[in-house]
Amino acid sequence: MQGEAMTEQESRSGEFVQSLDRGLAVIRAFGAERPSLTLSDVARVTGLSRASARRFLHTLVELGYVRTDGREFALRPAVLDLGYAYLSSLTLPDVAAPHLEQLSREVGESSSVAVLDGADIVYVARVATHRIMSAAIRVGTRFPAFATSMGRAILAHVPGDERDAFLAGAELPALTAHTVTTPAALRAELDRAREQGWALVDQELEEGLRSVAAPLHDARGDVVAAVNVSAPVRRGDVAEIRDDIVPPLLAAAKRIEDDLARLR
Amino acid sequence: MQGEAMTEQESRSGEFVQSLDRGLAVIRAFGAERPSLTLSDVARVTGLSRASARRFLHTLVELGYVRTDGREFALRPAVLDLGYAYLSSLTLPDVAAPHLEQLSREVGESSSVAVLDGADIVYVARVATHRIMSAAIRVGTRFPAFATSMGRAILAHVPGDERDAFLAGAELPALTAHTVTTPAALRAELDRAREQGWALVDQELEEGLRSVAAPLHDARGDVVAAVNVSAPVRRGDVAEIRDDIVPPLLAAAKRIEDDLARLR
Repeated sequence: MQGEAMTEQESRSGEFVQSLDRGLAVIRAFGAERPSLTLSDVARVTGLSRASARRFLHTLVELGYVRTDGREFALRPAVLDLGYAYLSSLTLPDVAAPHLEQLSREVGESSSVAVLDGADIVYVARVATHRIMSAAIRVGTRFPAFATSMGRAILAHVPGDERDAFLAGAELPALTAHTVTTPAALRAELDRAREQGWALVDQELEEGLRSVAAPLHDARGDVVAAVNVSAPVRRGDVAEIRDDIVPPLLAAAKRIEDDLARLR
Repeated sequence: MQGEAMTEQESRSGEFVQSLDRGLAVIRAFGAERPSLTLSDVARVTGLSRASARRFLHTLVELGYVRTDGREFALRPAVLDLGYAYLSSLTLPDVAAPHLEQLSREVGESSSVAVLDGADIVYVARVATHRIMSAAIRVGTRFPAFATSMGRAILAHVPGDERDAFLAGAELPALTAHTVTTPAALRAELDRAREQGWALVDQELEEGLRSVAAPLHDARGDVVAAVNVSAPVRRGDVAEIRDDIVPPLLAAAKRIEDDLARLR
C-alpha cells in the first residue's frame, strides 16, 4: 500500500483533507432544530455549494449514515457508531457506571462523569433519577467548564501554568445571577476546590440547581475526569449537601479510582 | 456558491466522496480494543497507505476529533458531537426519558428505547438500575434485532413484504442455547408479538436474562421504535413478568406515544 498514489484532492490541499472536514460539517448540520434538511438547507447551513452538498449527502446515504425520501435528508443511527467509537475507547464510562448507580441510589439524585474538552466539560456517563435541568443532559452534552462543579473539580487540578492560561483566556458569561464571572473569583473557587477535595456550584449554571463534584485520578495520579451529584435547591441548603452528599460522592470517586487502577 | 468548482477528488469519483468514507473509517478504527493507535496501526486497520492515514489523522487532529502525543493517536470527546447530532435530531429520547425513569422505578429493572437499523436494534435511551448483562449497554449499543424483545416488537409491525424479506435474508445465529434460529419459529414469535401487543425474549440474547418490549407508534401510526424492560431470570418465571412488568410497560409505551403525538 506504500506506493498508493495520493489523490488530487490530497495533494492540492497538502496535509489537510478538506473533504473530510466538509463531510463532518454536513453531519453536524443536523440537530435538534434541524432534524431533517433539504439539499438547499444543507448547502445553506454548511456554506457548501449545492453540488458539493449533494455529493456529501449522497456519500453519507451510501455509507448508511443518512436516509432520504428523495427530498428531505435525516441522520441514521449509524452516526451513533462514531460517538460510540470514542466511548468504547474509554474505560472510564464502563468502570464508573455501577458506582454511579450506587451513588444515585444512596443520595436519591442524578450523578454523572464528565471529561474536560477545551473550555467545556463533556458528559461521558450519567445516571438520571429525575429531570431537574431545563435541558435534557445525556452522554455527549457540553457545558462551559467554569460554571460546572465537574469542570471546577478538574480545572482545580490542572498544572498551574495551564490553569493560568485558562483563566486568562476564559470567557466567563453570567449564565445566572449567581455565576462567578471574574478570573479572580474563579481562581479562588478553584483553590478552595483543590484544598477541600471537591467543588461546589451553587445555581451558577442554572437557577435552582446545585452540584458537587470530585476529581477522578487515573492510575498515574493525573486528574482525567470528575464525578458529580446535582440536586435541586429545595432539597436543602449548602450545609446539607456537604453533610449528606459529599461523603458518598467522595466514596464513589474512590471506588472508581480503585477500579481504574486495577485495570492497568 | 453555485459556481464553486468541483474538486478533482469529487470529479474523479463521480458522486461518491472517497475521502469522507476513508476519514470516517479512521474514526471507526478506534474502539474498545484499540483506544490508542499509532500511524501504522491506523494504516493496518483501515487498509490505507501510511501517507493517506497520516493526512486523515492530521486532519482529525486539526479539527479537534483526535489527539496525539506525536506517536499514539486517540479520539477526543468532540467525536461525541457527531453522535449527539443524531440523538438531538430525534425527539424520541427526550420524550421517552422521564417515562423510562418512572417505568424503571415501578418495576425495579432497567428499561430502554431502541430503533431498528437494518438487521440491528440501536439503543437511543436507557435507564439502568443495575448491571445484569455481561456487556455494558449504553446509547449506541447494537444487538441483532431478531434475538431482542425490542427488535421483535418492531419487526412484528413492519409491513408483510418487508418482514418476509427480513426473514428470508436474516442470519439467525444461536446466541444462546435458547435462541430461536429458524425463520418459521421467528415468524411465529413475531405473529404472537403482534397479536398480544408485546414481545418476549427468554434468554435468547444472553443466558439468565429475559426481556419484554412494546412497540412505539409515531403520530402517523407507524411503529418507529420500541420500549423494553429486562429482568434477570432469578426475578421469577415468565408468568410473573407478564403479570408484574407487562402492564406498567404498556402504560409507559402509551404515555410516550401520547407525548409524541402532542409534539406534532
